[in-house]
Amino acid sequence: MRPSRRAPDEMRAVSFERGVLRHAEGSCLVKFGETHVLVAATLEERLPPWLKGQGRGWVTAEYGMLPRATHERTRREVTAGKPSGRTMEIQRLIGRSLRTIVDLEKLGERQITVDCDVIQADGGTRTAAITGAWIALHDCLSWMKARSLLSTIPLRDHVAAVSCGIIDGEPRLDLDYAEDSDAGTDCNFVMTGGGGFVELQGTAEKAPFTEEEFNAMLGLARKGIGRLVDLQKMAVA
Amino acid sequence: MRPSRRAPDEMRAVSFERGVLRHAEGSCLVKFGETHVLVAATLEERLPPWLKGQGRGWVTAEYGMLPRATHERTRREVTAGKPSGRTMEIQRLIGRSLRTIVDLEKLGERQITVDCDVIQADGGTRTAAITGAWIALHDCLSWMKARSLLSTIPLRDHVAAVSCGIIDGEPRLDLDYAEDSDAGTDCNFVMTGGGGFVELQGTAEKAPFTEEEFNAMLGLARKGIGRLVDLQKMAVA
Amino acid sequence: MRPSRRAPDEMRAVSFERGVLRHAEGSCLVKFGETHVLVAATLEERLPPWLKGQGRGWVTAEYGMLPRATHERTRREVTAGKPSGRTMEIQRLIGRSLRTIVDLEKLGERQITVDCDVIQADGGTRTAAITGAWIALHDCLSWMKARSLLSTIPLRDHVAAVSCGIIDGEPRLDLDYAEDSDAGTDCNFVMTGGGGFVELQGTAEKAPFTEEEFNAMLGLARKGIGRLVDLQKMAVA
Amino acid sequence: MRPSRRAPDEMRAVSFERGVLRHAEGSCLVKFGETHVLVAATLEERLPPWLKGQGRGWVTAEYGMLPRATHERTRREVTAGKPSGRTMEIQRLIGRSLRTIVDLEKLGERQITVDCDVIQADGGTRTAAITGAWIALHDCLSWMKARSLLSTIPLRDHVAAVSCGIIDGEPRLDLDYAEDSDAGTDCNFVMTGGGGFVELQGTAEKAPFTEEEFNAMLGLARKGIGRLVDLQKMAVA
Amino acid sequence: MRPSRRAPDEMRAVSFERGVLRHAEGSCLVKFGETHVLVAATLEERLPPWLKGQGRGWVTAEYGMLPRATHERTRREVTAGKPSGRTMEIQRLIGRSLRTIVDLEKLGERQITVDCDVIQADGGTRTAAITGAWIALHDCLSWMKARSLLSTIPLRDHVAAVSCGIIDGEPRLDLDYAEDSDAGTDCNFVMTGGGGFVELQGTAEKAPFTEEEFNAMLGLARKGIGRLVDLQKMAVA
Amino acid sequence: MRPSRRAPDEMRAVSFERGVLRHAEGSCLVKFGETHVLVAATLEERLPPWLKGQGRGWVTAEYGMLPRATHERTRREVTAGKPSGRTMEIQRLIGRSLRTIVDLEKLGERQITVDCDVIQADGGTRTAAITGAWIALHDCLSWMKARSLLSTIPLRDHVAAVSCGIIDGEPRLDLDYAEDSDAGTDCNFVMTGGGGFVELQGTAEKAPFTEEEFNAMLGLARKGIGRLVDLQKMAVA
Repeated sequence: MRPSRRAPDEMRAVSFERGVLRHAEGSCLVKFGETHVLVAATLEERLPPWLKGQGRGWVTAEYGMLPRATHERTRREVTAGKPSGRTMEIQRLIGRSLRTIVDLEKLGERQITVDCDVIQADGGTRTAAITGAWIALHDCLSWMKARSLLSTIPLRDHVAAVSCGIIDGEPRLDLDYAEDSDAGTDCNFVMTGGGGFVELQGTAEKAPFTEEEFNAMLGLARKGIGRLVDLQKMAVA
Repeated sequence: MRPSRRAPDEMRAVSFERGVLRHAEGSCLVKFGETHVLVAATLEERLPPWLKGQGRGWVTAEYGMLPRATHERTRREVTAGKPSGRTMEIQRLIGRSLRTIVDLEKLGERQITVDCDVIQADGGTRTAAITGAWIALHDCLSWMKARSLLSTIPLRDHVAAVSCGIIDGEPRLDLDYAEDSDAGTDCNFVMTGGGGFVELQGTAEKAPFTEEEFNAMLGLARKGIGRLVDLQKMAVA
Repeated sequence: MRPSRRAPDEMRAVSFERGVLRHAEGSCLVKFGETHVLVAATLEERLPPWLKGQGRGWVTAEYGMLPRATHERTRREVTAGKPSGRTMEIQRLIGRSLRTIVDLEKLGERQITVDCDVIQADGGTRTAAITGAWIALHDCLSWMKARSLLSTIPLRDHVAAVSCGIIDGEPRLDLDYAEDSDAGTDCNFVMTGGGGFVELQGTAEKAPFTEEEFNAMLGLARKGIGRLVDLQKMAVA
Repeated sequence: MRPSRRAPDEMRAVSFERGVLRHAEGSCLVKFGETHVLVAATLEERLPPWLKGQGRGWVTAEYGMLPRATHERTRREVTAGKPSGRTMEIQRLIGRSLRTIVDLEKLGERQITVDCDVIQADGGTRTAAITGAWIALHDCLSWMKARSLLSTIPLRDHVAAVSCGIIDGEPRLDLDYAEDSDAGTDCNFVMTGGGGFVELQGTAEKAPFTEEEFNAMLGLARKGIGRLVDLQKMAVA
Repeated sequence: MRPSRRAPDEMRAVSFERGVLRHAEGSCLVKFGETHVLVAATLEERLPPWLKGQGRGWVTAEYGMLPRATHERTRREVTAGKPSGRTMEIQRLIGRSLRTIVDLEKLGERQITVDCDVIQADGGTRTAAITGAWIALHDCLSWMKARSLLSTIPLRDHVAAVSCGIIDGEPRLDLDYAEDSDAGTDCNFVMTGGGGFVELQGTAEKAPFTEEEFNAMLGLARKGIGRLVDLQKMAVA
Repeated sequence: MRPSRRAPDEMRAVSFERGVLRHAEGSCLVKFGETHVLVAATLEERLPPWLKGQGRGWVTAEYGMLPRATHERTRREVTAGKPSGRTMEIQRLIGRSLRTIVDLEKLGERQITVDCDVIQADGGTRTAAITGAWIALHDCLSWMKARSLLSTIPLRDHVAAVSCGIIDGEPRLDLDYAEDSDAGTDCNFVMTGGGGFVELQGTAEKAPFTEEEFNAMLGLARKGIGRLVDLQKMAVA
């Protein structure tokens, strides 16, 4: 039995609250159970220097966690003077995931920065962030279209993410914190609405895992991603 | 006419949502109109080194702002590698304000850290933070009392804060961002339920201000603080 | 009896030594008793980027303390890699105080940086710094006028600062270190020659203070500021 | 045709030069073609604070790149004041990969730090680093056994890594820099001698990739890892 | 003719003002012409960790420069977040120079930190700092002896420093800023009262220099150091 | 007897391996016995801002040490966030030494950065770095001449460096780590092929040294430098 009494292939309750930030061009409070991430998409009419003059735009992401999002209070990264390796790894992942489904040429010479700030953490903050970021990005692009900055919304597809793990030999979908700490193997899948792979990250925490285990997790992930993409569609309909 | 159509002595709509963070010992989402601050109080059974062995505790505060709390996106402070002067000034103010009304001896050799993170900014983030911090601190102390870590709640009084300003010669209570940018003078008042001064900060932005102007602002502040303390009482009743 | 045997409304011996730095456009060694601050005003024909092209200038301040200005040696801030919150708070205060009495339009598109370095500290370093900074700034502007960079000295008024406190129930003027450590309440007043308020900063260190106490401190401050402005006038006469 | 004229399933020339550093307990210069990584394993009789007293050891890794390892000179990370996100991501990956195959209980309360410094880069620096790190770690453990610090070498298996990619629709093994820049998809596989997965990292650079493409890359990776493990065995025989 | 109209073998006016800092155990304002350095010696009853328990003490130095010590204002090092290479080079030099003439065993397990802060710079700040540091260190040790912390003053000798250069082919003693900028060769000599070498630093700014030139500079330095040591003796007599 | 069984005036085995880095315009692995430094010279068609438009180029150096170049592992400087004082001192020395023998006008408005990374340390890393840097710089300039970026190689002379010390009263040439730790006096000599002084750095580690001792070291240094310059000539012949 999972700590949350879910079936092995059952996701946590997922919700998207759009437009939660008055100032942002797109925003979304995404919840995967008790994991809550506030996502804000900001349009800026400027580009990183290395990208100027190439006729295309950029989408980047930053990730943060409020100090008391976690069971124990976590020190602010500004106190250490630099983002942790974990933070940098996650924000690079979010940025790459979003860029795969945006048509950067159609976006034009502009940058969209997607800030993902974890308000409350209970496992799967990066997968919730990516899934919610699609909503905020979509809404930012809609905002631009409504103001005739774009003629169409330059999104090629949906993108969503979910984690899977092997716990006591059982493959499980969408791990929460209690399971994540126990998992022998932890895989994050970032996939498109069309079922393509955007990012795969599998990590053996204790012992190596097998191809069979990987395939079982992949099967669960396909199911979870399908559900997340359906929810995204409903949210923006 | 104020941009918000409020009377000169009228505060914005104020609300406190308690217990919004699952992991924190005390938490509160405080809203002063469109200014929203998430406050989390964390109990830690440790003390800063310079305070050890003196038989009393400590209350400290940290302040942050999400990048897109503001009209234009603000760069994360971790990117600059250090908190700004403004951030340090505000978090020192919040910490001092709270310590004035806590009986640190009765708290015992423990530290409570109060994190104030601005989710959305529309002027008066420091005053909203202090006012909401009292709630989160109160709830953290109640949590401790419920677990018999304390026999009574070691709060001597309420503490709340409000800003006042002179705009076009008119003294006004609880400035929002539009007014704050225009104000020739800006005063922050931190006061107790009993009407004592905890902190006064008055700044002439353009021209010096007079004693009469100060007294007019003080009169407004007394009224606003009275209202805030009433709301705090209702919130924790 | 005050540790320094002064009357409650008596300032420490105050002196200004002008022109102490050969290279600076204006400089002043200001002493409030055993508190000694070296102030240097530097003219630079450049502006911070956000101010360019607006037809007005800027005055900013930086504050530092030599390691052995204090009873115990204080670690250099460069060793910590960043200025402390206290340093940033003070240098922001000095800069705002000076800008209130300078006509920035008449200054033209130039920046004056006022460096205040504490050579020896015995309480009231920020008030001594502001008071001496007016002299250094005045002399820098005179230097500019003498070289026909300005047709008049664009100072609207004097600005000076003094601290007051309540110690054992007694309001006192111009606290030294021994008193500052003991004070239940500590107020810094920055005022113009004309008696206007530039900055007020009142802090209850232990218990809240009353309006009567504030007014008593304000009365002392008016007296002290009056004396400081007279001394400034004599110094530059 | 690949730029290096290799067959799609052909690795670059791989070599290990052991004992290249006089002072290190284990060291190895690993070459994957023109990618050269110097690996040093250091035994330290101390542990990170959070691991003390648990009866087991730790293996960690650090990764660096000489400024002129690259086509264009790369700025030293110390100049920026902090490691890049890429560096942190890679060194975390190397550390996790090694820990999966070490019996940390048998290692005892000691830490081995594995430094991987890229002398020359031509794609695949992280895979070369992991593969060479196994040799340096093995030799460090042998050094300990020879000094009776260990009774057996606490390695459960080999670990090696290789990258695969899809270029112009063709799955290829062990990408060099020219191919890496062109690849639509880039997967890094870290696997044990027994064929278990330690880490999987797949990234769609431009368009999503399919399960078939992933499986083709996995097949190539199995072949490459098998070859690398054989070479490791020969090297330490 | 030298810009200062001095003879080639003539030092600038040198003076030592002792006891200028109320809080420091030893202090000295040293002037080499228009170069003014404030030196403070601080006794601390602690040691750097690597020196504990060896029965001997430590003398270290830190060096700083006020922003407007220079012709053009120099940015504070704390703003850059770290000391410059020049600062570190100089403070290491001062520390080594002092340690050579102190009997660290007799000092006991204590540290003396000598802070050298340049108030005004006109060339030769490091040589003035070393020469004045001897006075401050001497006075700190006398302070200790007066309080019976030491039975004798553990100084083996005097130490003083002077720069020499070759300008237009002419060897000159004690370069000021105008000469320093022009010098083809610049040598700093740190020597004891007994004529021993403590530190030699010779730098060819433009073209290499010859052994004859070096010997000419050495002859001047011997003369200058002799004079400085005489002045030190008079100062502490 | 020296630990290495060398005669007092005998250098360690010195070798230069040219062209070891595929991407660099000039490179050299220089060995002074067990001290191994990898030097890379990088041509960049840009200049530091303060040098632009003056019709001449710049040569600068950076110095680093791999963590396990040393007996005990040394922490990476990036971990501390800044280069150590020692690193900055050494890289400034290398840069100055090279600039003395390059005709910067003939180089044109370009910068050559010479990276010296210590692969293995056994004393004398700075002297080996300078001596090898001449080779890498020469080869970078030859590379430029071969591509008609220069009509002649703008080197005025050779430059090489060696350390000498006094150990147990005996002057010795080219100290290794064991001797360096023991030396009472340590001098680094940087000289040209023509016998001119470029840099002299003499440090009394324990007691002051005499002019006779200095001259004895200088005699050894002349011999060592002569040998190094001969080896440089053979290497590039």
